Amino acid sequence: KGLRIGMIPGDGIGKVVIPAAQRVLETVKGIPKPSFVTLPAGFEHFQATGTALPPDTISTLKNECNAAMFGAVSSPSHKVEGYSSPIVRLRKELDLYANIRPVMSVPGGQGRQIDMTIVRENTECLYIKSETIEDTPDGKVAIARRQISERASRRIGEMAFEVALASAAVRARLPEDQRIWKGPPKVTIVHKSNVLSVTDGLFRETVRSVKETGEGIERYKDVQLEEGIVDSLVYKLFREPEKLSTLVCPNLYGDIVSDGAAALVGSLGLVPSVNAGDSFIMGEPVHGSAPDIADRTPAIANPIAAIRSAALMLEYMGFPEPALAIYRAVNDVLLQGEHLTPDLGGTASTDQVVEAVLKGL
Amino acid sequence: KGLRIGMIPGDGIGKVVIPAAQRVLETVKGIPKPSFVTLPAGFEHFQATGTALPPDTISTLKNECNAAMFGAVSSPSHKVEGYSSPIVRLRKELDLYANIRPVMSVPGGQGRQIDMTIVRENTECLYIKSETIEDTPDGKVAIARRQISERASRRIGEMAFEVALASAAVRARLPEDQRIWKGPPKVTIVHKSNVLSVTDGLFRETVRSVKETGEGIERYKDVQLEEGIVDSLVYKLFREPEKLSTLVCPNLYGDIVSDGAAALVGSLGLVPSVNAGDSFIMGEPVHGSAPDIADRTPAIANPIAAIRSAALMLEYMGFPEPALAIYRAVNDVLLQGEHLTPDLGGTASTDQVVEAVLKGL
Ligand SMILES: CC(C)[C@H](C(=O)O)[C@@H](O)C(=O)O
Ligand SMILES: CC(C)[C@H](C(=O)O)[C@@H](O)C(=O)O
Repeated sequence: KGLRIGMIPGDGIGKVVIPAAQRVLETVKGIPKPSFVTLPAGFEHFQATGTALPPDTISTLKNECNAAMFGAVSSPSHKVEGYSSPIVRLRKELDLYANIRPVMSVPGGQGRQIDMTIVRENTECLYIKSETIEDTPDGKVAIARRQISERASRRIGEMAFEVALASAAVRARLPEDQRIWKGPPKVTIVHKSNVLSVTDGLFRETVRSVKETGEGIERYKDVQLEEGIVDSLVYKLFREPEKLSTLVCPNLYGDIVSDGAAALVGSLGLVPSVNAGDSFIMGEPVHGSAPDIADRTPAIANPIAAIRSAALMLEYMGFPEPALAIYRAVNDVLLQGEHLTPDLGGTASTDQVVEAVLKGL
Repeated sequence: KGLRIGMIPGDGIGKVVIPAAQRVLETVKGIPKPSFVTLPAGFEHFQATGTALPPDTISTLKNECNAAMFGAVSSPSHKVEGYSSPIVRLRKELDLYANIRPVMSVPGGQGRQIDMTIVRENTECLYIKSETIEDTPDGKVAIARRQISERASRRIGEMAFEVALASAAVRARLPEDQRIWKGPPKVTIVHKSNVLSVTDGLFRETVRSVKETGEGIERYKDVQLEEGIVDSLVYKLFREPEKLSTLVCPNLYGDIVSDGAAALVGSLGLVPSVNAGDSFIMGEPVHGSAPDIADRTPAIANPIAAIRSAALMLEYMGFPEPALAIYRAVNDVLLQGEHLTPDLGGTASTDQVVEAVLKGL
């Protein structure tokens, strides 16, 4: 099928940043010429049609595409019958079991120098959305089920160790002054097993066993293993982020920790992610639909998170060189500081940032 | 029963900071002369006796005490059969349904000026610890149940609005330059109802209804109401903490958010809390047992979180003036900067800090 990429802008600024990422993918050298198909999903689509994620969007992704880019979805400000988040559903439908979120400062830039990657389990935990509610004499009582399985914990654990090794390999090729993380590869398991001894206990033991049993003993012998209880991990994230490298988290902790980490590098508008499965990759900026700025003309949404997500998508599809070219072009724009959107204290429009990145490619 | 206070040092530095708080309670003026009873609990007690929370500790608290101070518990670094956190259990046994955590900068001090209070639901959410695990052909699958009830959500919502009003009343009596939060009272509901539409939907709607129905309409008419989705709330916590005032959270989000907030004021060693029920108050520093420094001689644990927790306990027992005297003495020590423990960059011992606070009383 060549390189065919599903583009799902979704809501709000998703409709601005996904076309921006597309321009970069059209320009970057070293990949087969991509073709794109724009696919609907989102809360606005739900309001217009009654469906947040049309079956056609899913089947086109499954049958025609090798990868996708997802923009953002709006969260309704009140309960809306029948609506359910399309991104959560897509992750499940395509079995994109790992959400990989690198949070990295620009080497040599201002502020704290941070280089961490959050490897978030992407299919279970409270995201199975198995909830019930009943009326009791004491009022309503609602229950949600949180699932942690050995299978999902093992594969996310393996992914985390692989990410730690791969990042170490990338760093080894960088000149000294471009390396932010200087220690050995390290994986930190994030959990709350002092309260959730069964579910988070299973997560923790299973991820541990990836390194401590079977082939992992040899393969991951140079990867350090640490743990952090989620509350004190968040404390550490803000006090000593330089000490964190690869974090592996159950779904919800990963969601929270990655927004916290994004705050450290100046803006959510900078942080990319991929949703990765064994045979499909979907790039997705970590930011949301930003309704407060979504309607501005000219658009001022920061396209960098989406552009970096496109690069990350290429990287995970097996095109490391074009990905690196995009990272470099983005870092140059950030270091140079002339074309920054308002979230970074600048006055540039989305388009001006995209043009600047394209020039650097 | 006079003023009888149960002292539960627990593990690690709990054994240092609880006696420190006791000395302050013995010295402060304006309360009936207190008597103290030291009660065992904790992981070390479990290792020694097989019980983390002896029934005697519970019954002494219930039958003899009007209030308590709890230090900290260690979390085992691996699964320990039969062990369960005594603090979680105590909160439930005594129906201490609200965990109130003010995170405040010293007025006029260095760094960001922050004045927020986290009002954390303290009895349910994933803390009901209802977990199961089973073997399947695909490996182990564990399930935890997360409970959100209308009753618990309503009473924590009411507590949050009352805290917002009470804080506004305290601020109104302060000189202008001592007021950090300058806006109207405000409550922010923290939730994740874009994924957990039933459980967090119930939490959100119920807390909303506290202000929007019945007596709340009149009573809370001057309290603003906002919402934040927990991941973006954590982002905001680090980007714009000056915009947050009273946060009301389901149990686990409150746990995570309060550690994050503590990072903003320089050290977990500064942040107090009370566990409050309708007829019992238990002060508890937000920090943990800090095994890394627990055995130092002289002790160097920061006693301020525990001392402030004692003050907060007095405040919630109806002794606002002595509480204020303690807050002032602590703030003076911090502003003056001569007696600071290592977590704050100083070289003072626990005792030196306590002496300095006592001098200011
Ligand atoms: C929009 C929301 C359902 C989503 C999530 O919780 O996963 C978002 O916060 C994210 O991190 O991608
Ligand atoms: C020790 C642990 C069980 C506890 C909790 O999760 O509530 C602690 O983190 C706290 O915040 O008091």
